[in-house]
Amino acid sequence: MLNIQSLLDAIAAEAASAKERGETASYIPELASADLNEFGISVVFNNGTVFSAGNSTASFSIQSISKVFVLTLALGKVGDGLWKRVGREPSGSSFNSIVLLEHESGIPRNPFINAGAIAVTDIMVAGHQPRETIGEILRFVRFVADDESIFIDEKVAASEARTSHRNAALAHYMKAFGNLSNPVDMTLGVYCHHCAIAMNCQQLAMAGRYLAFSGCHPATGKQVVSPDRARRINALMLTCGHYDGSGDFAYRVGLPAKSGVGGGILAIVPGIASISVWSPGLNEYGNSLLGTRALEQLAEATGWSVFSSST
Amino acid sequence: MLNIQSLLDAIAAEAASAKERGETASYIPELASADLNEFGISVVFNNGTVFSAGNSTASFSIQSISKVFVLTLALGKVGDGLWKRVGREPSGSSFNSIVLLEHESGIPRNPFINAGAIAVTDIMVAGHQPRETIGEILRFVRFVADDESIFIDEKVAASEARTSHRNAALAHYMKAFGNLSNPVDMTLGVYCHHCAIAMNCQQLAMAGRYLAFSGCHPATGKQVVSPDRARRINALMLTCGHYDGSGDFAYRVGLPAKSGVGGGILAIVPGIASISVWSPGLNEYGNSLLGTRALEQLAEATGWSVFSSST
Amino acid sequence: MLNIQSLLDAIAAEAASAKERGETASYIPELASADLNEFGISVVFNNGTVFSAGNSTASFSIQSISKVFVLTLALGKVGDGLWKRVGREPSGSSFNSIVLLEHESGIPRNPFINAGAIAVTDIMVAGHQPRETIGEILRFVRFVADDESIFIDEKVAASEARTSHRNAALAHYMKAFGNLSNPVDMTLGVYCHHCAIAMNCQQLAMAGRYLAFSGCHPATGKQVVSPDRARRINALMLTCGHYDGSGDFAYRVGLPAKSGVGGGILAIVPGIASISVWSPGLNEYGNSLLGTRALEQLAEATGWSVFSSST
Amino acid sequence: MLNIQSLLDAIAAEAASAKERGETASYIPELASADLNEFGISVVFNNGTVFSAGNSTASFSIQSISKVFVLTLALGKVGDGLWKRVGREPSGSSFNSIVLLEHESGIPRNPFINAGAIAVTDIMVAGHQPRETIGEILRFVRFVADDESIFIDEKVAASEARTSHRNAALAHYMKAFGNLSNPVDMTLGVYCHHCAIAMNCQQLAMAGRYLAFSGCHPATGKQVVSPDRARRINALMLTCGHYDGSGDFAYRVGLPAKSGVGGGILAIVPGIASISVWSPGLNEYGNSLLGTRALEQLAEATGWSVFSSST
Repeated sequence: MLNIQSLLDAIAAEAASAKERGETASYIPELASADLNEFGISVVFNNGTVFSAGNSTASFSIQSISKVFVLTLALGKVGDGLWKRVGREPSGSSFNSIVLLEHESGIPRNPFINAGAIAVTDIMVAGHQPRETIGEILRFVRFVADDESIFIDEKVAASEARTSHRNAALAHYMKAFGNLSNPVDMTLGVYCHHCAIAMNCQQLAMAGRYLAFSGCHPATGKQVVSPDRARRINALMLTCGHYDGSGDFAYRVGLPAKSGVGGGILAIVPGIASISVWSPGLNEYGNSLLGTRALEQLAEATGWSVFSSST
Repeated sequence: MLNIQSLLDAIAAEAASAKERGETASYIPELASADLNEFGISVVFNNGTVFSAGNSTASFSIQSISKVFVLTLALGKVGDGLWKRVGREPSGSSFNSIVLLEHESGIPRNPFINAGAIAVTDIMVAGHQPRETIGEILRFVRFVADDESIFIDEKVAASEARTSHRNAALAHYMKAFGNLSNPVDMTLGVYCHHCAIAMNCQQLAMAGRYLAFSGCHPATGKQVVSPDRARRINALMLTCGHYDGSGDFAYRVGLPAKSGVGGGILAIVPGIASISVWSPGLNEYGNSLLGTRALEQLAEATGWSVFSSST
Repeated sequence: MLNIQSLLDAIAAEAASAKERGETASYIPELASADLNEFGISVVFNNGTVFSAGNSTASFSIQSISKVFVLTLALGKVGDGLWKRVGREPSGSSFNSIVLLEHESGIPRNPFINAGAIAVTDIMVAGHQPRETIGEILRFVRFVADDESIFIDEKVAASEARTSHRNAALAHYMKAFGNLSNPVDMTLGVYCHHCAIAMNCQQLAMAGRYLAFSGCHPATGKQVVSPDRARRINALMLTCGHYDGSGDFAYRVGLPAKSGVGGGILAIVPGIASISVWSPGLNEYGNSLLGTRALEQLAEATGWSVFSSST
Repeated sequence: MLNIQSLLDAIAAEAASAKERGETASYIPELASADLNEFGISVVFNNGTVFSAGNSTASFSIQSISKVFVLTLALGKVGDGLWKRVGREPSGSSFNSIVLLEHESGIPRNPFINAGAIAVTDIMVAGHQPRETIGEILRFVRFVADDESIFIDEKVAASEARTSHRNAALAHYMKAFGNLSNPVDMTLGVYCHHCAIAMNCQQLAMAGRYLAFSGCHPATGKQVVSPDRARRINALMLTCGHYDGSGDFAYRVGLPAKSGVGGGILAIVPGIASISVWSPGLNEYGNSLLGTRALEQLAEATGWSVFSSST
C-alpha cells in the first residue's frame, strides 16, 4: 500500500536539492523577494487527515488561486448567467493578454486569466462596498479551509494595486465594451485584495476539499456547491488553470489545478484528495517550477491522474 | 444499479426526436449529403461487452478522430521527439486556423488541429511510400478494433484531396518553416486517406479500448502503448480534442474525447469504458451537436466525468 | 485658369444635397448630437488669401487633428528621440486597437493612432503641470492659426475624459511596458483637452499653412519647424492620417491629411495650399464621409494630388 | 542649377565605400549569391535623357517590382473590379504574412504584398495559357521600357517555383476562400516568371516613365494608362510599396516607390523623373539598404519628395 508520508518526504527531499528552481515573479517587491529555496506540500483526504512535507506552514500569497474561490462564490450568486460575461475556453495566450479581448468584444476567454477573473470579481462587487466584498471572499476562504486565521496581506494588496497597469488596461478595456459594471478602481481594488490572501500549504489544501468531494464541506457536511458545479469548476481548472501552460500541465500531471504567481498550486484529485504545493520559483508560463514537478511525481507514483485507468 | 442499455435507449430516443440537429459539414459532397436524422451510440466495457442504441452499425467517415490513432502510432515510432514538431497546448483557434503557425514559426499548437495532425502524419510517412503508410495506419485501426472489415472510403479521400486548399496552405506553410519532411502532396495524400477511414459506432468504441484500459489491447492482452502514454493521449484529447470548443466540452461532459466533422465522437472513461457516438449534424465548433448532448446525458447519468468524485 | 471659389461653391452645393451623409461619432454626447447637414470648406494660399464655402465659420471639435499640432510640438521638444517611443508605420488597424501594442511591447505603430498620440502627449507633459501643457498646446495652435479666439471646449474635454475607457486601457498598457512617464490620468487629461480644441474651417486651414509652406509661418515669416520636418510630418499624415482608411484616402485624394471624429479634415497641398473641410457624418473608418468626397473632388479638379504629374 | 550627374556620381561614390551593406535575400541561390558590392542608379527625365552612375547596365532580378507592371496590366483588363479581390491598405505586416488573410476572408490587404500580387496575377491568367500570360507581361515591360532585350531569367523562375512554399500557402489559402480562379500551380508559375524578369537600372528607370508622366509613354506619346490611374498606382506605391517599411520610406524619402528582394527599387517623381536604383544588400524589411539611402540622399538634394514644398 502507498505510504503517502514517505512519498511526500521523498518529493520534498528532491525539491530541496533541485538546482534549477525557476525565478520569482518580478512585478511586485513582495513576490520578487521570496526565497527560492522554499518548498512545501500538503495532501488532505476526505476524513480530514493532512499529510505534509517541507515548509507547509509558511504563508505565501495565493494570488491567482483565489480566482477559484471567487468563481465559486460568483457562480453561487448569479449562476450560469456568469457565462454571458466570460467564456470557458482555454485562451492559448498568456495570463495577461489583451489581444483576445479586442477580437472577442470584451468577453474574456475564461475566468482564470486575469481579464476573466476581473470580470468575475466585478460580478461579486455589484451593489456592495469593496470592503464588504473583500470581507465576503475572505470569510468564504476561511470557511472552506476551516481556519479563521487566514488573512489578507495588505502590503501585497497595496503593492499590487500600485503597479498593476496591465490589469487596469484589461479592466478599462472591458468597461469600454460594457463588460464591467463597477468603477475600474473599485473592481480592481477587490481583485488585488483577494489575490493578496495569504495561506500556507495546509490551509490551502484544506480549502480545496469541497472541489475534491462533490462540493461538500467535509467538516460540516454542508454542501458548498452542488456536485455538478464542483465537477465543472474542476474541468475549468484542468483546461484553463495554468494559462498557456495548461495543456502541458494536463499532459504531465493530469489533475485539475490552479496556480498563482506566488508559487502556489492547488490541485484536486476528484473523490480522493485535495493537494497544495508551494515553491516561489516560476517556469516560463508563470507556474511554480518545482511545484509542477512535485505534482507530476505525486501523480505518477499514485496513479491519481484523472486520465489514468489505474486508480 | 445502472442499466446501461435502458440509458442508451433513452438517449437515442431523445436524439431521434430532437428538433435542432445542427448542420452537416459542407466542404465535401460525401459529408454534406449525410442524413441529419442518423444517430448511433455504443459503449464497450473492459470485458468486451458492447451496449448500443440507434444506428450503431452504419459506417461513417471518422475524419479527425483518426488523428488519435495516427498520434498513437507516431509516438510509438519517434517517442517524445514528436513534441519538437508539434505542441500540446489548446489553440484557442478553429481547427484550420493558420494564424498561430505564423506567430509560432510553423510549430502547430497541438496534434489534433489540422496543422498538427498533418505534421504528425508527415512523421509517419518518413521513408515510406504513401500507400505503405496508409496501409500501416489502417492495419493499426483494424487491430485495435479487432475488426478486419474496416476500410478507407476512397471516394471521400479523393474528394477531400481535391478540395482541401486550407490543408494544402497549412502544409506548405509548415514546409516553408522546415516542419514538413515529405513533399506536401505525399503527406496530404496520407492525411486525406486516414481521415477517410469509415467505421461504425461499435467498431469505433472497440478501437478506443486501449485508451480506456491502461494502453492494453483487451482481446489479446497486448500492450498497445504504455499506461503513461495512454494517460497522456487522454489528457490531450480532453484539452484539445474539440478545437475551440474543447473547454465547453470538458465543462459539460468531462471526458477525454475526439470529434470528427463526419459527426463521430470517440470518448474515453479511463478504467471504465470506451464510447462512440455519431450524428452528422455539427454545432458551431464543428463537433456533433447531438453526439455532444448524448455524451453529456450519459456522463451525467453515470457520473463518469473524470472531474466527478461520485464514481 | 482655375476659379477656386466656383469650385468650392460647386463642391459645397453637391455636399448640401448628398443623401448618404454617414453617421456622427456616438461615444460622447457632444459629438453624437452634431448636425449631419453641416458642411464647410476653406482653402488658404501662401499669400494668406482664404477661399471658403458652406459653413466655414462654425466651430467643431478638431479631435484627432490636434495630434498633428502636438506631434509638431513634441518633435520640437525632443527631436528624433521621439521615435524611440512611437513608430511611423501605418498600423493596418483601427484607431483604437490595442492588439499591436501587445505584439510590439507597448510601442505604438505611429503618432496618429490613439495609442501613439497618447505617447506623444506624454512626452509633452513631462515635467509640467497638465494645465501648463494644455496652455502650451493651445498657444501653439493659436499662433499657427493667427487667431487668439481659438478655445478648448471644456464640456467636450470633460465628457471625453469620463467615457474614454479604451484610451485609459491604451495608456495603462503602455505604462505597463514603461512607455508612459506620467500618471495615466495626467497624460489622458491633457490628451482629452487637446482633442477638445474647437476650430472652424477657416481657422483650421490657416493653422495648417506651416505644413504646406516649408515649415514657415507665412504671417511672420518665422520658421515653425524646419522644411525637412514639415515634409516628414506630411509623409506621416499621408501614410497614417486616416487610420485603416489611409490607403484608400491616398488612392482617392492623394494628399497628406489628418481626420478627426468630429468630422474635420486638415489636408495639405505642399507648396500650394492648406485645406480644411468639415462635415460631422463619418464613414466606416471614422473619417468624414462628405469631407473625404469633397477633397477627392477638389484634388481631381485641381490636379493637386501629390501623386499627379499635372500640377 | 542642379547638376544631376555630379549628384549621382557622389551618391554612387558614397555607396561604393559604405561599410554596412545589408544582406542578400537568402531563399533562392541565385539571389543569395549576388555581389554585395554592386550598386547602380539611373534617372530618366521626360525628354528621355538618362543619367546614371555606378553599374547601371548590369541586369538584376526585379522580383516584386514586377508587381507594379502586372497591376497596371490587370487594371487595364478588369478595371476597378480588381478591388473586389484585393484591398488597397498598408498591411502593417511583412511581405509574406498570412495572418491577415485569415482575418479578412482571403482578401489580401494590397496588391504589393505577395498574397495580393498572386491574386492580381491570377486575374491576368484568367482564360489564358500561363505561357501566353507570361508573354503578355514581358511584352508590356519591354514596351514601357522601349527595350526588346529585356528577358526572364528562367533559372531564377525555376528556383523560385521550387522553393516558394510560403507563396503556395498563400495561394492555396486564397483558393480556399474562393479568391483564386486558376489552379494554384498555374497562377504561381506565372507569378514566379514575372518576378524573374531581369533588368538593369537604365531599363527599369525607362520602364517607370509612364507613372511619372501622366500615364503617357513618352517615346510614342501613347497613353499606357489614364493620368488618374497613374496617379493612383503612385499612391499605392507610396503607402504599400515597401511592405512594413513603407511608412519609414515615405518619412525618409517621400517618393512613390516599389522595392524587390533582388535589391532593386523603382521610384517615381511625378511630373519630373523616373528613378531606378539597385544594390543587392537588404535591410530588415527586405528593401535595398543602400538603394534606400541613395534615394534619401537624392530626394534631399533635389527636393523631389512629394511632401516637400520646395520644388
